[in-house]
Amino acid sequence: MPELRLDPVTGRWVLVATERAKRPKDFAQHDAAGLKVPPGHSDACPFCPGNERQTPPEIFSFRRDGTGPDEPGWWVRGVPNKYPALTWEPTVKPSTSGVFSVRPATGAHEVIIESPLHNVSPATMTHDDMAEVVRAYVHRYRALASADDIRYILIFRNHGRDAGASLEHPHSQIAGVPLVPPVVLEEIAGARQHQETTGRCVFCDMVRQELDASARMVLETREFVALEPYASKMPFETWVLPKAHTPSFHELDPSRHHELAGVLVDVLGAISRGLHDPPYNYILHTAPPRERCDGFYHWHIEIFPKLTVAAGFEFGMGVYINITTPETAAEFLRNCIQARDPGRNSGAQG
Amino acid sequence: MPELRLDPVTGRWVLVATERAKRPKDFAQHDAAGLKVPPGHSDACPFCPGNERQTPPEIFSFRRDGTGPDEPGWWVRGVPNKYPALTWEPTVKPSTSGVFSVRPATGAHEVIIESPLHNVSPATMTHDDMAEVVRAYVHRYRALASADDIRYILIFRNHGRDAGASLEHPHSQIAGVPLVPPVVLEEIAGARQHQETTGRCVFCDMVRQELDASARMVLETREFVALEPYASKMPFETWVLPKAHTPSFHELDPSRHHELAGVLVDVLGAISRGLHDPPYNYILHTAPPRERCDGFYHWHIEIFPKLTVAAGFEFGMGVYINITTPETAAEFLRNCIQARDPGRNSGAQG
Repeated sequence: MPELRLDPVTGRWVLVATERAKRPKDFAQHDAAGLKVPPGHSDACPFCPGNERQTPPEIFSFRRDGTGPDEPGWWVRGVPNKYPALTWEPTVKPSTSGVFSVRPATGAHEVIIESPLHNVSPATMTHDDMAEVVRAYVHRYRALASADDIRYILIFRNHGRDAGASLEHPHSQIAGVPLVPPVVLEEIAGARQHQETTGRCVFCDMVRQELDASARMVLETREFVALEPYASKMPFETWVLPKAHTPSFHELDPSRHHELAGVLVDVLGAISRGLHDPPYNYILHTAPPRERCDGFYHWHIEIFPKLTVAAGFEFGMGVYINITTPETAAEFLRNCIQARDPGRNSGAQG
Repeated sequence: MPELRLDPVTGRWVLVATERAKRPKDFAQHDAAGLKVPPGHSDACPFCPGNERQTPPEIFSFRRDGTGPDEPGWWVRGVPNKYPALTWEPTVKPSTSGVFSVRPATGAHEVIIESPLHNVSPATMTHDDMAEVVRAYVHRYRALASADDIRYILIFRNHGRDAGASLEHPHSQIAGVPLVPPVVLEEIAGARQHQETTGRCVFCDMVRQELDASARMVLETREFVALEPYASKMPFETWVLPKAHTPSFHELDPSRHHELAGVLVDVLGAISRGLHDPPYNYILHTAPPRERCDGFYHWHIEIFPKLTVAAGFEFGMGVYINITTPETAAEFLRNCIQARDPGRNSGAQG
């Protein structure tokens, strides 16, 4: 150590340097005793039941029979983002002046309110409740994928103020964007090259190799794996992938919503309990609806706990310094899961 | 608004969405009255004079005649980073196993202690003192550029704990790294394409266009400009560039050290006073020593105040959301500079 590890998908290097490492326990940002548990309902929260008029009119909801839109009675609710980063009413036209070009940021920016309860999160939800959030993701993905001018659907979640969540009430965000994200283009380029060289999907190869080695496995179910990627950019970065080759998330069979929800709850629960509810982001990576990448792209969810600060080195290089090896992180998370549920298959049988 | 602006160098989009904007004054993280001024000397600080034995032996120092290495008497001092991200004694060999590859992180990782005073920073230093820091950058750049296996020299500064500074005492970092940073490769690719298309340097074109338009100019001196880039990724992102086409920083004539130092002090001073000493990173971008990019690359310094949080959207897209237009930021910083020094040419004569 230190060592440079190559991300097999993007071809980007990550610098693993444990000289300045903390032990996993030292990452905890506050004592467990210091964790404030917010109330289950907040009159001031625009996402709490009874305050439905404080959001723009709802786009959809999963709700009890006999209740109407923008009324209580829902368990998952989708609304437009009140401060959208993308809109359908652009005020700017595409133009170029000298070296500068601008185009309108057209698209959709929506919020999925994950629960009527103010104080839950995927780390503490039941698998059943989280399965309804997964169902909402698929529902909105399908609706937005058919819209003109939308080239990609970005589904993500910010947890905690330091990870960009401006409201405490549990929610995810969905953006229908007018360009394929550079991050996804980079993955597609790397995955295409791997397929051209080997004839195989690089994500499938990675899953197979990780299941064999087991050192970076966090959790294995019938259809999914959770693992710490070999070239993790940050401590406790965790990916959730389907084992079977599946390019696009929206192909997820409804019978698998519950299983995926369970993996997310168990992994985020381990991160939350083991590291004292750190801020995190998770992002769904999926094939762009209008691109042909069936043979080599493979949808997955990337979870980034926010435990360290990206600084001058990262900004200047485009190379992350990771102070915790993914092998250490995986062992820690496996232990967190097993301590909670000794019967759970943690995926590290080796 | 919102709008997508194209970075003319890299071809990356930035999303400018001011709907959720704060006014510049609202970015201030603490009241001016709440700013703690640390002491000028700290017995516990390994970078303070008298504690020289707490660092690895010094690499160089600018010091008073009659004083010796690792003794007080210096005004700028360079030492190896005690927790290096790169070393010359690798323990890992280059190897590949399945889809995973690793190589040693060989190179140099040094700290430049910018002052014997514990409580100054470039925002509060004299131009003379900062000129000595610039001289130290050039000195170490030249020394590292001749080392085998070093492909790039990264010079950067982290200010404040939230921008990754683990020690309060003013210091910069220099890394001699074994690969050209992906961030710089992307700039080179874009700049090369501009040169092939137009025959010109894209940075020169940008400087010329900004001097004409003046809306994003912060400061202009005889040889340098400071400006808010058209596709600023973050509020108050500021670039400092030489006006004349100059690929590599180390070509900076010693007679210009003082002028560059003055621009850095004035710009960082405006950011510090106007926004209440926010955390920031600055990074020197320069041509890699062994690459041929004389015709189209142009060294510059990028300053990133840390006022907002990159979250799921940024991680998932590789596209930043910036809530403050560079035109608003430039006007604010020009006013900060003029309030301090009414005679100063702020570069916005238009």
